[in-house]
Amino acid sequence: MTHRQIDSTKFAERVSSWLTEPGPEGDVVVSSRVRLARNLADYPFVTKLAPERAVELAERVKEPLSALRLGGPMQWVPIHEAPAILRLCLRERHLVSRDLAPSAEERAALPGRAVAFSDDETVSVMVNEEDHLRLQAMSAGFDLATAFQRAQTVDRELEQRLQFAVSETYGYLTCCPTNVGTGLRASVMLHLPALSLVRPELEKVFLAVQRTGLALRGLYGEGSKATGDFYQVSNQITLGRDENQLTAELVDLVASIVRFERNVRDSLFKAQRAALTDRVSRSLGMLRSARFMTTDNALAHLSNLRIGVCLGLWPAGSVPLVNRLRIQIQRGHLQALSAREAPTELAEPSARDRLRAALLRRELAERN
Amino acid sequence: MTHRQIDSTKFAERVSSWLTEPGPEGDVVVSSRVRLARNLADYPFVTKLAPERAVELAERVKEPLSALRLGGPMQWVPIHEAPAILRLCLRERHLVSRDLAPSAEERAALPGRAVAFSDDETVSVMVNEEDHLRLQAMSAGFDLATAFQRAQTVDRELEQRLQFAVSETYGYLTCCPTNVGTGLRASVMLHLPALSLVRPELEKVFLAVQRTGLALRGLYGEGSKATGDFYQVSNQITLGRDENQLTAELVDLVASIVRFERNVRDSLFKAQRAALTDRVSRSLGMLRSARFMTTDNALAHLSNLRIGVCLGLWPAGSVPLVNRLRIQIQRGHLQALSAREAPTELAEPSARDRLRAALLRRELAERN
Repeated sequence: MTHRQIDSTKFAERVSSWLTEPGPEGDVVVSSRVRLARNLADYPFVTKLAPERAVELAERVKEPLSALRLGGPMQWVPIHEAPAILRLCLRERHLVSRDLAPSAEERAALPGRAVAFSDDETVSVMVNEEDHLRLQAMSAGFDLATAFQRAQTVDRELEQRLQFAVSETYGYLTCCPTNVGTGLRASVMLHLPALSLVRPELEKVFLAVQRTGLALRGLYGEGSKATGDFYQVSNQITLGRDENQLTAELVDLVASIVRFERNVRDSLFKAQRAALTDRVSRSLGMLRSARFMTTDNALAHLSNLRIGVCLGLWPAGSVPLVNRLRIQIQRGHLQALSAREAPTELAEPSARDRLRAALLRRELAERN
Repeated sequence: MTHRQIDSTKFAERVSSWLTEPGPEGDVVVSSRVRLARNLADYPFVTKLAPERAVELAERVKEPLSALRLGGPMQWVPIHEAPAILRLCLRERHLVSRDLAPSAEERAALPGRAVAFSDDETVSVMVNEEDHLRLQAMSAGFDLATAFQRAQTVDRELEQRLQFAVSETYGYLTCCPTNVGTGLRASVMLHLPALSLVRPELEKVFLAVQRTGLALRGLYGEGSKATGDFYQVSNQITLGRDENQLTAELVDLVASIVRFERNVRDSLFKAQRAALTDRVSRSLGMLRSARFMTTDNALAHLSNLRIGVCLGLWPAGSVPLVNRLRIQIQRGHLQALSAREAPTELAEPSARDRLRAALLRRELAERN
């Protein structure tokens, strides 16, 4: 059970099974995620951890992580041994954070860093990222309860075999003070094309999110811009409240954003049905015919297809298809999918734009 | 043989047979045109012509015009009796000038105005436009000789039955002094997408045209902007030179523009084949999928398809197909083609954009 068993191409072809169904409120909510930050009591935090102790820690958690059975058998990938392309794919699948993806500094490849993830990709645990362990559970659509339950199950199973650093006053201790307490961050990825079209409405949502002490961000977490109208809402507070309170706030807010987005969609659909149909149809035409396609362009067109599916304007399409393409058009996946024809190092931008266009033409041909 | 025999819809469906072959140098030259301005000796110029005398003049020329047999039997359309939609179609087919097309002022509908044109549309004669008679002959591609020969044949046949106003010193007398002498204007419609891409090269062409005393204009003659990279070159001088000199100058200049455009196309094709393929493919995708399409947008995409055909990037396409669509996507043709589903008055812009998109989708489906 090592990374050597993972063929990047096969991995890129078989996109996370949990994404193959739209999930609850799948017209607006792409996915729900819960992560828990945990540290072992008898090791210094990662920032103070000597390389040999990091390796030792990884060895120690490997077996308990491998023993988990929620979501199928676990894969174990030591980051410093994994090829750059696989790490990039893991990042694009949201199985590892930016810190564990390939970078210029190659801090990512520090010894002892690893990721364990379940066969269905609903559960993953990063080792020696910011904290010793970062447990993550995913679910399709708007389903924080399931994600939370999965994370909690993993947490409890691990707690039986590992001693976590806990303070009776504060709760779980974490490397960064912003995570102390529950160590919980819950987030929901939203697709808000209608609200994005009506700027002032979207600003109302931003204000509401800020007032609640939550955060709204683009697709890849902090500091990233919304591409293709995908946004992520997450909690900021981890201390002084319990897990149920934290997720309940988020659930309420997301539910109201979902209603808001749907109302704007309905109005747009009534007032501008023809223009929306034109928009969806043009995007489909463009994705089926372009020979070069940038990521941003592709995401913008896929955003149009997604709303096209939800409004019944593209009968041959489906939310899971768009979800899958949104992942597969990314750099690592593209490269892995074309491994048989292209060199294994990361292709240059124009070659990637060509591969991306070819993938989209292939996948969308004949789907009317 | 009146306009009542002309069904606008059938007229719009059956586009000018001479446009159904590309003609010589059809990759760059769309069409060649020669027009002769002639006036009857015993009538005042149109600007001084009383309405009843204009009607009398029309009656007098109707029979000689109808007797012409070059290019098939002649149609006779009295402008004041023709429906607006037919007049618009005639304008879009270049069979009448802007002055005879429907306008707010309706000067066009003055009594005595008419057009006679041959079944194949290579020959047309406007009656009581700026001059009593405006003879026009067209040919596909770069073939001024044929157009000139046709115009001359018509001129000679009419001269046997009508007495033209001629001065021994100046030549043919015309209403506007700029036409005195030969009364000849020769023009060539060019498609210059490659030169249009390389601004400084196109400016060189403009300068060369000006130096030669010729004029370069957009698609619909004086004052109009080039849409879809279509330009018209014509002579300005009509006095003091004979017809052969005038057309020879134009022929030389056009031949050099054709070489120039082809050289730039070759360079672009070598250096940016992939980008050009993308451009052609995207335009095809867009024309096949859009639900609304403005004229300018459609012409720009059709321009890409035309160069796509010429560079072998769109095997299922052809120059005549693009030529035909360029005419049929225009307002009058669109309206005439949809007469069975839409009201007969001119539809509003958004309805036209919808009809245009539907026509293009229908015509371009399955042509890969």
